[in-house]
Amino acid sequence: MSGSETGRELRARLRDFYDDYAHCLDDGDLDQWAQFFTEDATYRVIARENHDRGLEHATIYCKGKGMILDRALAVQKTTVQVPRSLRHLVGGVRIRTAGEVIRSEASFIICESLSDRDPRLFLVGRHVDQVVREGDGFLFKERNCVYDNYRILNSLIFPA
Amino acid sequence: MSGSETGRELRARLRDFYDDYAHCLDDGDLDQWAQFFTEDATYRVIARENHDRGLEHATIYCKGKGMILDRALAVQKTTVQVPRSLRHLVGGVRIRTAGEVIRSEASFIICESLSDRDPRLFLVGRHVDQVVREGDGFLFKERNCVYDNYRILNSLIFPA
Amino acid sequence: MSGSETGRELRARLRDFYDDYAHCLDDGDLDQWAQFFTEDATYRVIARENHDRGLEHATIYCKGKGMILDRALAVQKTTVQVPRSLRHLVGGVRIRTAGEVIRSEASFIICESLSDRDPRLFLVGRHVDQVVREGDGFLFKERNCVYDNYRILNSLIFPA
Repeated sequence: MSGSETGRELRARLRDFYDDYAHCLDDGDLDQWAQFFTEDATYRVIARENHDRGLEHATIYCKGKGMILDRALAVQKTTVQVPRSLRHLVGGVRIRTAGEVIRSEASFIICESLSDRDPRLFLVGRHVDQVVREGDGFLFKERNCVYDNYRILNSLIFPA
Repeated sequence: MSGSETGRELRARLRDFYDDYAHCLDDGDLDQWAQFFTEDATYRVIARENHDRGLEHATIYCKGKGMILDRALAVQKTTVQVPRSLRHLVGGVRIRTAGEVIRSEASFIICESLSDRDPRLFLVGRHVDQVVREGDGFLFKERNCVYDNYRILNSLIFPA
Repeated sequence: MSGSETGRELRARLRDFYDDYAHCLDDGDLDQWAQFFTEDATYRVIARENHDRGLEHATIYCKGKGMILDRALAVQKTTVQVPRSLRHLVGGVRIRTAGEVIRSEASFIICESLSDRDPRLFLVGRHVDQVVREGDGFLFKERNCVYDNYRILNSLIFPA
């Protein structure tokens, strides 16, 4: 970590990074989404029930950027689904430990809008992440989207 | 833009500005709300279906501060409605381009509380704005409240 | 207030403080929660209907840190309840007045996830607070969680 950067500055910069990630998904730009990860990144969407007990089963699991790119391609090219808008709100970015690898967390809610329904809470939970520096910015070395809800509404198509 | 202001500082200042706007509406202070706009401002609440295809039909449309003030007056003096509380949460403020006119965006959700109902998501979407500097602060030259949901719950009375 | 700290810096620091408070509750760490308050703190969860008319009846009322610690103990040791996850999102932190005592506000939503239900909005409202400085950080001298909704879903067990 740069000698002159305080924990508060780092936290503010991470907040921007988390917001950029959320916007990328809300824009539906899945090619760009994959660029938020390191080559060896792990990406998981996992139930709190499993995560908090150390159980490994995840609803979405990608090991390495190759699998993340594959996921992005699959969603865009092969899934058939009702059109929908997702909207991410991220709050409470915090740093657990800051070193070579930064361990950070944040809360999120994802709202879903479908053409025949009122908008609703789709997924609620927290990000549990490992972040590394890349140039002036950051990349996710590990991102766990740990959702609180005990069941998924319909189906989980887009990443969180 | 001031030579010493970085993009990160501008983003942090815009975040404060967006939060002030949200609070103003949650306080129900519509006279103050009109003061967030330039004299020639355009204010729209518009469905994503229309906005993203370049279609112009908006659910609320005000051209110029005169129409915005008129809207504020109409809501306060002439509408008959069930009492309600609205609560805006704004996230993910970001800058698209920063020049004389700043193009910025943010995500929002608006929760509605009525006396005979549980609280619910009323409107979910994003702000697509043009902001100009005014003294130490900012004003909206153009504000588009682009909602994701395909239909409006009951009626849209208050601005977003 | 330190001579070199601007209102914007203070607001940014308060935003971090508010986020830390929210995380503490989402982690279910009620012992730590009590440490956010001064010895003589007042903590209330109160309906907007009452608060905005100056009526004093609160749904949860703690006078002094002793009562707050007692509340924390009671929730952890004596309540029988369906397991649930709560998720706080805090937005729009703003300063009303900044002196020895800082009067600040923020909006919040709390989402609830239960094992047999989809996630839902549990509580929506605003914090109306008095904050004092403590070392490098802050403590709440008074925290009012003013909820917009006119009724409580099921029961209010955890603090807000």
